[in-house]
Amino acid sequence: MPVYVVGHKIPDSDSICGAIALAHLKNQIGEASVATRLGDISPETAFILDKFGFEAPELKLSYAGEEVYIVDHSELTQAPDDIAEATIVGIVDHHKLGDLTTSTPLECWIRPVGCSNTVIKMMYDFYNVEIPKNIAGIMLCAILSDTVIFKSPTCTTADIKCVEALAEIAGIEDFKALGMDMFKVKSAVEGTPARDLVMRDFKDFNMNGNLVGIGQLEVIDLSVFDDIKADLEADIAALKAEGNRHSVLLLLTDIMKEGSEMLIVTDDLAKVESAYNCKSVDNKVWLDGVLSRKKQVVPPLQDAFA
Amino acid sequence: MPVYVVGHKIPDSDSICGAIALAHLKNQIGEASVATRLGDISPETAFILDKFGFEAPELKLSYAGEEVYIVDHSELTQAPDDIAEATIVGIVDHHKLGDLTTSTPLECWIRPVGCSNTVIKMMYDFYNVEIPKNIAGIMLCAILSDTVIFKSPTCTTADIKCVEALAEIAGIEDFKALGMDMFKVKSAVEGTPARDLVMRDFKDFNMNGNLVGIGQLEVIDLSVFDDIKADLEADIAALKAEGNRHSVLLLLTDIMKEGSEMLIVTDDLAKVESAYNCKSVDNKVWLDGVLSRKKQVVPPLQDAFA
Ligand SMILES: [Mn+2]
Ligand SMILES: [Mn+2]
Repeated sequence: MPVYVVGHKIPDSDSICGAIALAHLKNQIGEASVATRLGDISPETAFILDKFGFEAPELKLSYAGEEVYIVDHSELTQAPDDIAEATIVGIVDHHKLGDLTTSTPLECWIRPVGCSNTVIKMMYDFYNVEIPKNIAGIMLCAILSDTVIFKSPTCTTADIKCVEALAEIAGIEDFKALGMDMFKVKSAVEGTPARDLVMRDFKDFNMNGNLVGIGQLEVIDLSVFDDIKADLEADIAALKAEGNRHSVLLLLTDIMKEGSEMLIVTDDLAKVESAYNCKSVDNKVWLDGVLSRKKQVVPPLQDAFA
Repeated sequence: MPVYVVGHKIPDSDSICGAIALAHLKNQIGEASVATRLGDISPETAFILDKFGFEAPELKLSYAGEEVYIVDHSELTQAPDDIAEATIVGIVDHHKLGDLTTSTPLECWIRPVGCSNTVIKMMYDFYNVEIPKNIAGIMLCAILSDTVIFKSPTCTTADIKCVEALAEIAGIEDFKALGMDMFKVKSAVEGTPARDLVMRDFKDFNMNGNLVGIGQLEVIDLSVFDDIKADLEADIAALKAEGNRHSVLLLLTDIMKEGSEMLIVTDDLAKVESAYNCKSVDNKVWLDGVLSRKKQVVPPLQDAFA
């Protein structure tokens, strides 16, 4: 029976590329593994897979009785629904330590770096396994995505060195241009239903018993949202009600201006405003310098709920 | 401000030696660190520290406002009482993933091997830092202790190779003899109060909301307990009542016969018996081949509670 290597719900490029890269590594060291996914892939991820000649991993939602290697999270809310009936054999991640627990020993490769694929590169180095060119390519793209081409405050020296090494392996000369191509794909929001946009990169968090959903859309220019912002606001209000959430935040991130407009629906606006030390207007606020949900948005709110 | 490197409550040799070894490594790579401990050291640990010329780490119980690197566990019940007010910057461990969570990204070096010090050796290798002779000595002893000189089912090839490499560094020719010396120290129970013996290596677990305490005494010959077994049984009954525990189990492990007698006090004897597929007599049962609390005792009971 293989180990299934799977990223979080509403998979991003790090989850998908990481699952493929880690499953390959595990197979090389004699541990039969299959990359899977918990949901549809985003246009950005489709662009990456297509560019390097990969199919999307198999969609697989149930893991009861199976062995699972978790990629890019350690949160129950982001894991397969029946994860409690599976055996978690490992976790590779770069986020805060979440509420997944196990009843047997496992391996955890968790580092405070910009991307899970940077950690997976460390695993390849540890096992002294060569990274195929096309896998180096998708790993590189995942790191450029998670670190917003090194602009995110989550980006570390390890991520930059890792991208440089992967570019060499993959034979990519101008990886920043490739990163911009990726973000251009991400910026094409026209014609996409509001719900699809909101859910494109959306994570639920359990904050001291309160369910808080935080979505993020990273684009090259916020003007792409001018015509649809009202739709997005209406949609996150609906999403809050449907999921019995305490709050839903949607970050519209301008990667060139290096900041985010946050759209807010919440049961406690004062708590949200105090978390970010800001004053919203019409449930919207510009947060200058805020690019990272993980480092700049989740911790202050988590602390406000503590 | 330094990072405090600290093992679990009722520290064993792995927690103490691991804290010393990891603090040294961190200091070598420019991260100011201080090894600390959450309780008294055991006679075995005192023997190890004395043999290699170390003082016990500083006793420090409160970590509010501090940065902490956790060694040899990831369980709230085994961590400092005020860990929620501290920042966990890292975890090195070899147990099941417990219920510690964080609000910020951290590093986790967790592997399904026999001892945290085996993982710490991997960290030295990763950072390419030389292990001083005396630190190699205490790390080696911790691994021999946790793996019961390689007899425990938790022992892996990685642990054996690690001990061999550390023996070379420390200049120890007969590490198995050193291991037996250590277990002879551990076997000297005469004259020690029952409570001190029970608490010498005792861990509390939260099993689906039920507090379960499991102690273990590893000796070369179970006959050392003949005169004091009734005292031990009375003491774990008292411990159960004092702590409002669902169960207290005490494993009397014979490392030569390679099995454990389990003393049981519990609110649900049938659950305990079914977990280990055994029938107790007078709340005692011999479990042949059972040497490891972590691998053979905790998971079946955890599953029974699930
Ligand atoms: Mn990621
Ligand atoms: Mn240990």
